[in-house]
Amino acid sequence: MKDYIKIDEWKIIEDGFNSAHNKISESIFSLGNGRMGQRANFEEAYSGETLQGNYVAGVYYNDKTRVGWWKNGYPEYFSKVLNAANWVGIDVAIDGEQLDLAKCAVSNFRRELNMKEGYLKRNFTAKNNSGKQVEVEAIRFCSMADDEAGAIKYTITPLNFDGALTVTPFIDGDVVNQDANYDEKFWDEVAKGCDDNDCYIQMRTKKTGFDVATGMQFSILQNGQAIETAHEIIQKEKYIGAKITLQAQKGQPITVFKYAANLSSQNHKVEDLIINLKATLDRVSKKGFDTMLAEQAAAWEEKWKHNDIIIEGDPSAQQAIRFNIFQLNQTYTGEDDRLNIGPKGFTGEKYGGVTYWDTEAYCVPFYLSTAEQKVTKNLLLYRYKQLEQAYQNAGMLGFGNGAALYPMVSINGIECHNEWEITFEELHRNGAIAYAIFNYVRYTGDADYLVDYGLEVLIGIARFWRYRVSWSAEKEKYVMLGITGPNEYENNINNNWYTNTLATWCMQYAMEVMEKVKAIDADKYAKLIAKLNFNEEQETGKFTHIIDNMYYPYDERNQVFLQQDGYLDKEQILVKDLPASDRPLNQKWSWDRILRSCFIKQADVLQGIYFFEDKYDIDTIRRNFDFYEPRTVHESSLSPCLHAILAAKLGDEARAYEFYLRTARLDLDDYNNDTEDGCHITSMAGTWMAVVEGFGGMRMRDDKLSFKPFLPGKWASFSFHVGFRDSLLNVRVSKEQIAIKNLSGIETTVLVHDKTYLVKANSEVVI
Amino acid sequence: MKDYIKIDEWKIIEDGFNSAHNKISESIFSLGNGRMGQRANFEEAYSGETLQGNYVAGVYYNDKTRVGWWKNGYPEYFSKVLNAANWVGIDVAIDGEQLDLAKCAVSNFRRELNMKEGYLKRNFTAKNNSGKQVEVEAIRFCSMADDEAGAIKYTITPLNFDGALTVTPFIDGDVVNQDANYDEKFWDEVAKGCDDNDCYIQMRTKKTGFDVATGMQFSILQNGQAIETAHEIIQKEKYIGAKITLQAQKGQPITVFKYAANLSSQNHKVEDLIINLKATLDRVSKKGFDTMLAEQAAAWEEKWKHNDIIIEGDPSAQQAIRFNIFQLNQTYTGEDDRLNIGPKGFTGEKYGGVTYWDTEAYCVPFYLSTAEQKVTKNLLLYRYKQLEQAYQNAGMLGFGNGAALYPMVSINGIECHNEWEITFEELHRNGAIAYAIFNYVRYTGDADYLVDYGLEVLIGIARFWRYRVSWSAEKEKYVMLGITGPNEYENNINNNWYTNTLATWCMQYAMEVMEKVKAIDADKYAKLIAKLNFNEEQETGKFTHIIDNMYYPYDERNQVFLQQDGYLDKEQILVKDLPASDRPLNQKWSWDRILRSCFIKQADVLQGIYFFEDKYDIDTIRRNFDFYEPRTVHESSLSPCLHAILAAKLGDEARAYEFYLRTARLDLDDYNNDTEDGCHITSMAGTWMAVVEGFGGMRMRDDKLSFKPFLPGKWASFSFHVGFRDSLLNVRVSKEQIAIKNLSGIETTVLVHDKTYLVKANSEVVI
Repeated sequence: MKDYIKIDEWKIIEDGFNSAHNKISESIFSLGNGRMGQRANFEEAYSGETLQGNYVAGVYYNDKTRVGWWKNGYPEYFSKVLNAANWVGIDVAIDGEQLDLAKCAVSNFRRELNMKEGYLKRNFTAKNNSGKQVEVEAIRFCSMADDEAGAIKYTITPLNFDGALTVTPFIDGDVVNQDANYDEKFWDEVAKGCDDNDCYIQMRTKKTGFDVATGMQFSILQNGQAIETAHEIIQKEKYIGAKITLQAQKGQPITVFKYAANLSSQNHKVEDLIINLKATLDRVSKKGFDTMLAEQAAAWEEKWKHNDIIIEGDPSAQQAIRFNIFQLNQTYTGEDDRLNIGPKGFTGEKYGGVTYWDTEAYCVPFYLSTAEQKVTKNLLLYRYKQLEQAYQNAGMLGFGNGAALYPMVSINGIECHNEWEITFEELHRNGAIAYAIFNYVRYTGDADYLVDYGLEVLIGIARFWRYRVSWSAEKEKYVMLGITGPNEYENNINNNWYTNTLATWCMQYAMEVMEKVKAIDADKYAKLIAKLNFNEEQETGKFTHIIDNMYYPYDERNQVFLQQDGYLDKEQILVKDLPASDRPLNQKWSWDRILRSCFIKQADVLQGIYFFEDKYDIDTIRRNFDFYEPRTVHESSLSPCLHAILAAKLGDEARAYEFYLRTARLDLDDYNNDTEDGCHITSMAGTWMAVVEGFGGMRMRDDKLSFKPFLPGKWASFSFHVGFRDSLLNVRVSKEQIAIKNLSGIETTVLVHDKTYLVKANSEVVI
Repeated sequence: MKDYIKIDEWKIIEDGFNSAHNKISESIFSLGNGRMGQRANFEEAYSGETLQGNYVAGVYYNDKTRVGWWKNGYPEYFSKVLNAANWVGIDVAIDGEQLDLAKCAVSNFRRELNMKEGYLKRNFTAKNNSGKQVEVEAIRFCSMADDEAGAIKYTITPLNFDGALTVTPFIDGDVVNQDANYDEKFWDEVAKGCDDNDCYIQMRTKKTGFDVATGMQFSILQNGQAIETAHEIIQKEKYIGAKITLQAQKGQPITVFKYAANLSSQNHKVEDLIINLKATLDRVSKKGFDTMLAEQAAAWEEKWKHNDIIIEGDPSAQQAIRFNIFQLNQTYTGEDDRLNIGPKGFTGEKYGGVTYWDTEAYCVPFYLSTAEQKVTKNLLLYRYKQLEQAYQNAGMLGFGNGAALYPMVSINGIECHNEWEITFEELHRNGAIAYAIFNYVRYTGDADYLVDYGLEVLIGIARFWRYRVSWSAEKEKYVMLGITGPNEYENNINNNWYTNTLATWCMQYAMEVMEKVKAIDADKYAKLIAKLNFNEEQETGKFTHIIDNMYYPYDERNQVFLQQDGYLDKEQILVKDLPASDRPLNQKWSWDRILRSCFIKQADVLQGIYFFEDKYDIDTIRRNFDFYEPRTVHESSLSPCLHAILAAKLGDEARAYEFYLRTARLDLDDYNNDTEDGCHITSMAGTWMAVVEGFGGMRMRDDKLSFKPFLPGKWASFSFHVGFRDSLLNVRVSKEQIAIKNLSGIETTVLVHDKTYLVKANSEVVI
């Protein structure tokens, strides 16, 4: 836990240079525009601790699997979004001495992430070994308006000398992933070159063959005047730079504008990459930095209009929630159904930048309410397009006949994870994919999605569960053996209540959707089941038999759903009785000790209750919450938010707020000592959920939005925006009232504390 | 399955060269003398498929752990017996063209492993690309009489040319382990040199700092006459050779005698290594090859006198059983309590050459009956001396207070294995260590061992179990959660019947031994419990409470012990109903599918019944055998032998023989397609057990050997030797009779089919 980040409602601020925090700040101050992103590495050289990171969405490398002992069925490779060419670099030398903050006396250091307008600004004064002092200001951003481009304005002012100053803006493709399994380099150079003030490199990923052309164009101002100077081209392997030597004058600022672009063969023909790259560079540099920055601010203004949350009376909470919303929007914009959301977004390498069930369980609710419908639809289409691979994944585990198993971890749909207890057994992710379809259709009303895409996926998933359950002659019930639930502190268990519940729900929902699709378009339905070779009578008969005869572990004594068979054989100790020195368990205890304890990593039974809340009465929810939460160590960043929502539902406002606090500033305060690896992007969506579904009590009910808000005691008020179908609402909760403002031209009906209110176009209802 | 090995009662023969079999033959024809060993690599260069392997017992490297995902508690390194300097190499060149069987026309190729006399002989004729033909005979062995030395006699006869022939005997320390985790080299060169006909290299292992000096001395005969020729010393990094150029004459044999020695800093002061090495080389070369070979034959004659098994009427079985006995004796001679038995012995790298529970469960019975008492005692002392590390291992899992956990895999006592489900959960190995003490004392009557060593180990083990069980409020019994049993096709299960049974037995036995030790030497007992801080009343009280309240899963319907909680929730399919295309499961099924199936890798409940046979009536044994065996896929080479013994006990002679056959020729016939990695040394002890305990029905009963022999139908007779206390018996079972001959001067009483017979010194009882 650190608290060096200054509080500000719209900015993230680091004031003063502490090299020990540098990797943390590199994560926190990361930039992205959905198409590309980068850690907040310095433009100039830095020989201190740093994790260099530049990423291009959807461009990955298949890193050969590394395991201790091979198990049959393990994937061949782990796909990783790989560190791509560094385009932010500008080497600076003063009289031949390289500017490097690790080797200078640094003062007036300040980093600011301006979330309102979407840029990063850094200021510092540095005195080098020769006593020469410069003042630097660097502003940069990844453009939301031109999502293949970014720009930097880098201004150096000599404070106490006249003399030679060289600046070398460069593109460096000779980068590595720190998490490479075998210390390989992942890129080959294809081409590089320069003309005029353009430099570019075209790199190609090994194995996967993505080409990415990265280029720059630069211009120089001295003392406010554009200057033309000769530059020397520096070429090394996978590197190209332009060295410009200037005569610096004391007090006269020198400004380097560096316009950069990343074009990938996903979006351009390989043979056009360089041409299109140059055109992009020409176009954006003609706009110029200030215009680009204004467009950036405008793009962010538009975003904030739809998704800002305002918290009055608590600037720290205000900063945190905006930071979470900002990072989510930097990570995924929903323009491209081939892209998804890595747990670290563009802020680090960890988890390979690839897709987990976090997307469906945590990010979908966020994007459903804060972005256009197509954004979530694209997240769903991403999975739809990977259905073939889901059949393959199921095949790896011995299932055919159209059974589909979505991967635990993947970018191309093929399972990448290589721990048997996760890869082969943490199957609930398959249900989350189905749940996201349900959630999307429930929220948007887009039943056509079911006809064109959803049902096909749902049938594959339902079939998987059908084959994965087995009949227990002992129990005379269907059982599901060898499972890891969302609580990964249990492995290879039998009859995980959540997974069993989710499995039968998937079959049930698939059958409901069949009826719906039949009703909407009987022809398409007939074509689909023919294509899938779906024997409706026989297969739905089997689904029904499983639904009717599934085993769900239950504890009669406590009247709670039992997390899994045998859970009560464990010593029942509560988290509050654990010595502090044993926490976090995953750092202090050996794995077996964790496994045989009753302690729960994250919501498991409660995840099911959250998903299917309407099926359970409030007493059931309370009993399960009261039983499981005290056994939960919340060692996943995805855990507290669900508990916040459930605590809010149970009326325990204080605990709801307490759970919210655990993740709201997770990265800003480096709560888990791991922000240096990158930010917890997907759990940020959970924080948003804690506010909107927790404090706002927002649910879908009967095709309407329903709210049961309460105001955390520390706050004066909070308000949030939600888009719902074609309307845009602002919900403001203060001590005095709940105000629901319709910011759109379309009227809508909402429920507030179970009462119905019509909110007319462009008007407000105050309750 | 292959059958290229020719049948011979005393020899292993490969007739004709098939490069596809080379790595298999390299394993099968391996040599060793307990102190060092080697694969049957060629002396001359070979560019074909080969696994080079030379090993020095007890010399290992700590190879940094490699895992996919780190789990807390994983060991830092995996200790590996590492590939050591190659001392067998003799490069041969004919008119400058290197002799390499991969590049020649090879005829008359024959490899023979002479098991009676303990040497390897190879003959071939090779025609090189220039058409020059040579005939070669190579004989070599690792000396049992001089266990730091080996010798080679390598004879080349030019068949169709006169010309220059160079021979370069060399020592090559620049070797790698194919199974290195990070492609590191494990050795540094410390020194090398030559004088006269001596060459040596001293190498040091990285990290572990073992020094091994490897040297050679050579002499040459041409056409039967000793010749003195100049030689050129060839030095490269970690390599030294002596190149001798000869004028070869058609038809005149050239013989190179190469005497080699390996001295390790385990047995010599580092500063004396080279001096002692030279002295050894001088000594053995003075003896000369023929004398050394004669001593080798004599040493083996002595061994066979004590452990030969003679099978009449089945030469293939005869060859197989001798091969197993031969390899076991090459691997471990029991001279040194710092050494143990790797699953592959000196025949390959797999499993790191380190110690598993195989030693206690399979090898101890073999050495108890076939070698002097001290041999098994040294195996036990090996564990005794690693008790401190066993405390550390337990500490890694969170257990203190004198709890001892022996490692699953180790050479220095520190756990090396890095799969949580094995490392942390396959705990029954700890019971096998206790069982071996019980077995040793039962067989030898050496109760002093308990006083001086045994009890200390038993208390540590009993304490471990005490802390590892937990109280189930649900069952009102002690339970053991998160276990992997001997059947590794189940992971992280609860209440493995075998492990629960073994755990309470360990506590019970520890308490019995306490009483025994008290009776023998109350003083020593008092000192020991003071040293261990053992609170007798409190701790034995706890042991007793656990013993009295342990939960053992049981199936009332089938009246069988239940392998673990929930086993009957699995679909109960029998192995005979599995499609052949699904076998072996571990190559055809993904790991989760194996785990959730009912199929059993190797004896689990039946391992317990084997260990504690006397506790169960014959119907109980039969019911359990009949239930579990049909569900067992025997995908461990350690599985069939136990089933052979139990089938024999149940009177099912045909099946006993069938199980015996599955491993008897496992390596000779490359039954599992993995002999190229090395031979299954520890399962060879199981084969011996199948004959002696299965067909011979040998057991310990009331301090006597008891036999209930039967003769497999295909055999005319079989006989085996067993040493028992100070007597040596030969038991011969033929169609007509059972003859028990006492080859020693000490009379003994045996039971045969439950009847008592006195077998007088040097006489025979025929039944």
